[in-house]
Amino acid sequence: MELPVLPEDVDLQDEKLSPLQLAEHIQGLDEENQKNVFNALPEQKAVQTFEYLPFTSQKLILSALTSEKSAYLLNNLSPDDRTAFLEELPTAVVNQIIKLLSPEERILTLKLLGYPEDSVGRLMTPDYLAIKKEWTVQQVLDFVRKHGSDRETVSVIYVIDDRGVLLDDLKIREFLFAPLDAHVTDLMDGQFITLSAFENEGQAIEVFRKYERVALPVVDREGILLGIVTIDDILNIVSEETTEDIQKMGGMEALEAPYMLTPFIELMKKRTGWLVLLFLGEMLTASALGYFEQEISKAVVLALFLPLIISSGGNSGSQASTLIIRAMSLREVAIKDWLKVMKRELLSGVFLGTVLGTIGFLRVVSWSAFSSIYGPHWFLVALTVYCSLIGVVLWGTLMGSMLPFILRRLGFDPATSSAPFVATFVDVTGVILYFSIAIIILEGTLL
Amino acid sequence: MELPVLPEDVDLQDEKLSPLQLAEHIQGLDEENQKNVFNALPEQKAVQTFEYLPFTSQKLILSALTSEKSAYLLNNLSPDDRTAFLEELPTAVVNQIIKLLSPEERILTLKLLGYPEDSVGRLMTPDYLAIKKEWTVQQVLDFVRKHGSDRETVSVIYVIDDRGVLLDDLKIREFLFAPLDAHVTDLMDGQFITLSAFENEGQAIEVFRKYERVALPVVDREGILLGIVTIDDILNIVSEETTEDIQKMGGMEALEAPYMLTPFIELMKKRTGWLVLLFLGEMLTASALGYFEQEISKAVVLALFLPLIISSGGNSGSQASTLIIRAMSLREVAIKDWLKVMKRELLSGVFLGTVLGTIGFLRVVSWSAFSSIYGPHWFLVALTVYCSLIGVVLWGTLMGSMLPFILRRLGFDPATSSAPFVATFVDVTGVILYFSIAIIILEGTLL
Repeated sequence: MELPVLPEDVDLQDEKLSPLQLAEHIQGLDEENQKNVFNALPEQKAVQTFEYLPFTSQKLILSALTSEKSAYLLNNLSPDDRTAFLEELPTAVVNQIIKLLSPEERILTLKLLGYPEDSVGRLMTPDYLAIKKEWTVQQVLDFVRKHGSDRETVSVIYVIDDRGVLLDDLKIREFLFAPLDAHVTDLMDGQFITLSAFENEGQAIEVFRKYERVALPVVDREGILLGIVTIDDILNIVSEETTEDIQKMGGMEALEAPYMLTPFIELMKKRTGWLVLLFLGEMLTASALGYFEQEISKAVVLALFLPLIISSGGNSGSQASTLIIRAMSLREVAIKDWLKVMKRELLSGVFLGTVLGTIGFLRVVSWSAFSSIYGPHWFLVALTVYCSLIGVVLWGTLMGSMLPFILRRLGFDPATSSAPFVATFVDVTGVILYFSIAIIILEGTLL
Repeated sequence: MELPVLPEDVDLQDEKLSPLQLAEHIQGLDEENQKNVFNALPEQKAVQTFEYLPFTSQKLILSALTSEKSAYLLNNLSPDDRTAFLEELPTAVVNQIIKLLSPEERILTLKLLGYPEDSVGRLMTPDYLAIKKEWTVQQVLDFVRKHGSDRETVSVIYVIDDRGVLLDDLKIREFLFAPLDAHVTDLMDGQFITLSAFENEGQAIEVFRKYERVALPVVDREGILLGIVTIDDILNIVSEETTEDIQKMGGMEALEAPYMLTPFIELMKKRTGWLVLLFLGEMLTASALGYFEQEISKAVVLALFLPLIISSGGNSGSQASTLIIRAMSLREVAIKDWLKVMKRELLSGVFLGTVLGTIGFLRVVSWSAFSSIYGPHWFLVALTVYCSLIGVVLWGTLMGSMLPFILRRLGFDPATSSAPFVATFVDVTGVILYFSIAIIILEGTLL
């Protein structure tokens, strides 16, 4: 990527600097200078620059502005950027800020904030161009020329009726290629895709991905056009959503800011909770093993394979849960597919378990050929390892693939059935399974 | 999302059906019918429908077409869609297919295929509009009207000089609002962002995310415009890239198709390799434990806490590696940040280890108040658990956060340092750490 580099002794009043370059420069400064430099910007440039700044800098800067300047800034932000900013703030602060808006902007913002978090309503902007179907191409072009400059996107224009019901969406290019005296109706094909304001972001992402649009209209139940969602906002959301998913899958709460910018205390808060929960869960292995203390003291050899066996269950479970969670978040797999997935993963579990079981079996047998480390009953030990591995891997695979379905069914985020969570769950049952199989096979010999 | 539903007895020759609806319908059919229905489509509609189909259907359908029809189809696909399709096929098949292209299209395709896989060159399309800076607005609009209809995007227009060097990018809307007799130079600000054809996709995604563009120009070293990349292709890539990352982080090779569409054999191939590798790694725990067999038989109580202790190292390592891998793929963290990250994670490890260690300590102490399960030396056992947990969690956190850096430095994908990989690595060292601490603390009493 090439971009004119900002010199060290940059002149911030230089009109040639783009808001983007200014934002980049400001981010690199310390807190005090961020405030000062921003304060010195001409008003209109300040607004544009603000939109490019990360949330942490935005918050910092807004806190240092006079009420008058804050009001100007907020009133001139594009509605979706303003909503995105307010969404990150605590409610009390939001209420303070909303007071600074003009009555008109206040209504708009409150309306956008009225939609549930992570809903399409929060993403949409009312900055679109709407035309009537009776107009001529010439009228449309004049209208665009007059009203288009402050709109988020003029590559798509929306045709509405007198009640505001959406009739069609048309690309601006269709008007450029049409005779000037043609009517809008001549260009309409009545084919359009809409989003509902109450759909969640994930669904909107899917629609954008599938239909390759740069903007989509949002309508209410009666088909009235409420606003549009643009693809650049979708691209940001995709990335945020996946980061949250990935962090949950890593066994922690999702961070609200980039790793390097998250304060240490915050980072520990997000990590400690799940780690302690997993630890408490894993404590059950100590309890389970307590029941088998006698068996362990009789046959210490069993303890040697304990980590190997339970971790195999964890690893196979982590594969299965990762696959299913991702497939669910891409909407490739739905709740109704659970039986199909279960059959598939049962088969996978048997196959993978047999592969690992065979390797484990060969390991015990071949070591025993050269040493007496596994004792005189090495063959029975090998058999125990073989059977336990099949059982534990099958169990891990099954749990890993079914937990996301169960969590989703209960209304939780499937990503919570993370690799560490599945591993912990499978560890406890793995201990019980392993020693139960050992007792059956080794009773009368080692035990 | 609302979309006119396709009735069961759909008339496929109905001109009102959009290529999108047709593609949706075709996907739902069995293999034989997919071929037949596609074959029956009018030529131009067939091309548009083909672009909306998933790769598996595309391959199936192309294999059943006559050479003549294949040639028409391939010659009329947009260049980036054609490249995306060819990229998925084996080289031998690609060479066959390229022969079907017209000489002009062949040169274009070979050029695009000449760029490394996952590079910007493969993503770009030469379907853009380029203008000269001497033109008037009227000339530009006439040019767009004449040539724009088959271009991927006409929302951005590129200004080039006689050698083809990119001078500026301008939004079409800027022309709509300008007087017709103004010149292109009057609108130019010389500010533009470019991609290089040899950059990788990940970098392009970052640029799109940062600068909120719908299309970006691709230039060579001399600044000559080679093509453009559009945001809809970026959205698809983002999703593919993250799926690969997530699957690797789940301890497996990335799948090439959605989970439900991946044949069972393929699925097992992708999963068995890593699982076996992890299993072989985990076997080292059995070897390590072999060295401590004597200690275990003297103090069986140590075996009870084994899974608890090693899994805590695995869980904290999995948190740390997940955080760093994701931050790296979002370019929030670079290799040069390793020391900063290490300091942070050292502190995290000490904190998290102390929290878990304290809980573990209290558990042994409180259990011992009511039962004699942990024997007369329960306090020393509690101390062993406490110290081991701090050590193992610290070690896990450190390894989890540093492995992605090491892998990247060695030229591997950091996502390979998945949760299961880190857990396995930490398990083996955790066993050694635990028993070493036990020997130091319990020597002379239990051991």
